[in-house]
Amino acid sequence: MDLDYQKSDGLVTAVIQDHASGRVLMVGYMNEEAFRTTTETGFATFYSRSRKKLWQKGESSGHRLAVKEIAVDCDRDAVLVKVEAIGPGVCHEGYESCFFRRLDDGEWKVSEERTYDPTTIYRGQA
Amino acid sequence: MDLDYQKSDGLVTAVIQDHASGRVLMVGYMNEEAFRTTTETGFATFYSRSRKKLWQKGESSGHRLAVKEIAVDCDRDAVLVKVEAIGPGVCHEGYESCFFRRLDDGEWKVSEERTYDPTTIYRGQA
Repeated sequence: MDLDYQKSDGLVTAVIQDHASGRVLMVGYMNEEAFRTTTETGFATFYSRSRKKLWQKGESSGHRLAVKEIAVDCDRDAVLVKVEAIGPGVCHEGYESCFFRRLDDGEWKVSEERTYDPTTIYRGQA
Repeated sequence: MDLDYQKSDGLVTAVIQDHASGRVLMVGYMNEEAFRTTTETGFATFYSRSRKKLWQKGESSGHRLAVKEIAVDCDRDAVLVKVEAIGPGVCHEGYESCFFRRLDDGEWKVSEERTYDPTTIYRGQA
């Protein structure tokens, strides 16, 4: 069974979930090559829509995502990747998860503390 | 802070997670109206890319998704919606989650039992 890359211009949506805590860490997108690279290397690899190229999560920060399990949804256009996140946080803004803001009375509010200082890791590249 | 609907042709990705178990149940897409309707009604509402219209999850099956919490990711193009799922399953194929197939030795294999018979609910509409 192949993934359906046609619905989103050659991409599938990839939801990244911590395999131990169940926390959703980030959402990325994979083209066929990124998905194949993810399964072959065991580390989550995405296609950057803005930079138009493959990137292995953690290639600059070291915060890689070791794949534990991959599931696919019923219409084959989204994958759920359970991972062990290496390092203190997945988000380039310094948080454990990219979903660090919650809707609270109609406003998005930061709902947790940073787990690391992103300026020491990304050196301004963000 | 507004969501960024521009990166995906007017849509943001919406990851639906069970608020109690942490299981990821489905992935959908919301345009601005779907997101507003979700927050106003308290039930997850999506934009169907194939039918090109808004749909409240559960409008035909009754399996609605009551919103408990909404988070947004760092680049504001994905939301994480924690829900209480009403009914025996979210997937129109009869499973608790749409992610009922796992990659196993290079093949997608169904990894769980159905929680209901979809033919009694959807009457062939799928």
